Formats: sequence, structure tokens, C-alpha cells
Amino acid sequence: MTSFEELVKERRSASNFLPDHPISKKELDEIFTLVKFGPTAFNLQHPNYIVVTNPDVKEKLKVAANNQHKVSSSSAVIIVTGNKLAYQDAAKIYEGLLMLGIVNKQEYDAQVEDTTLFYKKNGEGFQRDEAIRNGSLSAMMFMLAAKDKGWDTCPMIGFDNEAVKGILEIDDQYEVVMMITLGKEKVSSRKPRGYRKPVSEFISYVE
Amino acid sequence: MTSFEELVKERRSASNFLPDHPISKKELDEIFTLVKFGPTAFNLQHPNYIVVTNPDVKEKLKVAANNQHKVSSSSAVIIVTGNKLAYQDAAKIYEGLLMLGIVNKQEYDAQVEDTTLFYKKNGEGFQRDEAIRNGSLSAMMFMLAAKDKGWDTCPMIGFDNEAVKGILEIDDQYEVVMMITLGKEKVSSRKPRGYRKPVSEFISYVE
Repeated sequence: MTSFEELVKERRSASNFLPDHPISKKELDEIFTLVKFGPTAFNLQHPNYIVVTNPDVKEKLKVAANNQHKVSSSSAVIIVTGNKLAYQDAAKIYEGLLMLGIVNKQEYDAQVEDTTLFYKKNGEGFQRDEAIRNGSLSAMMFMLAAKDKGWDTCPMIGFDNEAVKGILEIDDQYEVVMMITLGKEKVSSRKPRGYRKPVSEFISYVE
Repeated sequence: MTSFEELVKERRSASNFLPDHPISKKELDEIFTLVKFGPTAFNLQHPNYIVVTNPDVKEKLKVAANNQHKVSSSSAVIIVTGNKLAYQDAAKIYEGLLMLGIVNKQEYDAQVEDTTLFYKKNGEGFQRDEAIRNGSLSAMMFMLAAKDKGWDTCPMIGFDNEAVKGILEIDDQYEVVMMITLGKEKVSSRKPRGYRKPVSEFISYVE
């Protein structure tokens, strides 16, 4: 068993993948079953994932991603989206707590109203930020869970957002947060890990 | 040793903390030493962290966060920010690869130019998105690393962003991405884990 420290250090953003390593739905399901436990603001579960294994669609996504070869050689291309209107699901998501008697009707109503008002009050810009924020929290969990199951990943932002939305017919309600290519890393193409700033350069203390 | 699966399932967003459990700089340093290995777009290392343990400043942050008690009872309040101008550090960050001879001068110059142009071309809105996106990827790594070292966390977005910037004198170059309270969870205040949608509701396949 790998320690968390080893997992983090072994996870590298893959610059290329070995072809012909299909990933099964069962394996993907195991990864997403862990991703599910990640935190989201007000438990609204903004992130959604589109998993593309169809070769023709992958080719279209490759073109939308500046023809980066790893999109083709990957076992799956994953598009992480965030639901900008996730707050509209509050009533449904919180219902379980009411049904289990953990909150009473009055508390339930107040929770639903508070969450809804918070998102409405903060407006569309904030709703979009939340889609990106919660989608990205989830994406990190996804990449670690994938590595834990033996799969390498590369998070990508160098793609035409509108083209990806068009190819996958993504509704405007969803913000495209990130593309993640997944597969078995072609280790012979590996570059050294990029330089990391020392901790003291990105942390400050108010003691 | 905890498996990754156990770590993910044991990590819960704490609704309250036990007081009088200070965290040392050494312990924080161990967490951040892992966080450092997380991926960022073009390795620009956008995230920065402000760790607040000063009781007076924590009280001010509590007021800015709708007087949520966990801000007071936490061992540290962590403000995750993202550098909107991280692309300006490309030359410095990529220099190591040049010095090690992994890229030649021409490749180095092209990398720096490509990254800089990509951010300039996509404009200020995108630079801000990237601050949120990369800050959030890092925040998830932080919360898992903290749990691995025995510390509980709660990611928070219910605070006055401008007030937090004012209290901590955060420059406009940095976007406040998230507040994270950290401490030892007061387990007696624990609520049941919120309902999670089944995997099939947030994943779709294009096969």
C-alpha cells in the first residue's frame, strides 16, 4: 500500500500515454466512487464529468486542444464541468437530512432558503466562480484517486472552451472547468518534474 | 498506514474544532511540503497561502465570515489566494530546466514566450479564473495532506471577500480563492455526512 506522501510524489502530470490501454467503466466507477466524497460548497455537488473514450470524438477534442498528441494517446479524455445553477438542487440534496430526522422541517426550509439566497445575492459571476472552484477541488481528488488505482493523468487548460462545449453539446448551465487526459504514462517521454518554489515563497504567517 | 480510500472517507468538513490545540510551524511546513508537488497550469504555481494563528486577527476574520464560531475555535485560519499575474514568473520558474540543460536557450525562450502570450491573449478574466482554478486544485491537496497528518479542515466560501483582503492587506494581484479552517475536529459536534448523488448522476460517457 502506498502512503499519501508516496502517492502525491508519484503522481506526475503525464506528457504522453501508451496507446492501447483501455480503461473499463468498472475502473472509472471505482475512481468516481471516491471522488464523490470530496467536499463542495454547501454540499451542492457542482462538478459533473464527461468521460470520452470514443476515438472520433477524442480526435475532435484533440483539434480543439491545439492538436496535443496526448489527447489521442490517452485512454480517456475527461471534461470536468461545474453546474452554475447547482444551488437550485439544494432542496433535493438536503431532503435526506429531513427524511432521516436529523433536521426538522423548519431547519430544512431555512437551510434551503439560506443557500439559495446566498447564490442569488452573489450573482452570476459568483455562480460561475463556484463552478470553477468546486470543479477544481473535485478534479484534484479525481487525479489522486486515479493515480491510487494505477492511472496517470494530465490536467489541461490549453483548449478552445467554446469548441469543446460545441463538440460535447454542453449546456450553458455548465462551465467547462478543465480537461484531464488519463492513461498509462509513456515513461520514456517523461520530462523531469518542473521546479517547485520552496515553501517559504508561497506561505506567509500572521502569528 | 491509512490507504488513500480510507483517507478520503475519513476526511470530513469539520463543523467545529476543539480549542487549545495549537499547530506548530513544523507541522504546517510538513503539510505544505506535500502541497508543493500538486500540479498547476504551466507549472506557474499560482497558489499562495496565508496562515493566521494570531487570535486578534482570527477574531476579525470571524466577523468577516458571518461570525462562524469555527473560525475562532480553529487552530489556524488559512486563506488560499491565487496570483493572477503568475505568468510573469514563467522566466524564473523555467530557468532551472535551462540551467540543468534539459532545454536549450531557444526552447526556454519559446516556453516563456508561449506561456506569457497564452495568458496575455486570454486576458484578465482568464487570469482570474486561473487563480481560482489552480488555487482550488491546491486547496484540495492541502486538505488531504492535513488529514494525513492528523488535522481536520473545513473549506469555506461564506465570507466577505473584500473584508478579508482588507484585514490581511492582500494586494489586488491576488484573488482570494477560499478560506480553510484547520484544527482538531470537535467530534461531538459532528453532523452526519451530507447526501451524495450516485456516480451515475454526475458522470456521462461518450463511448
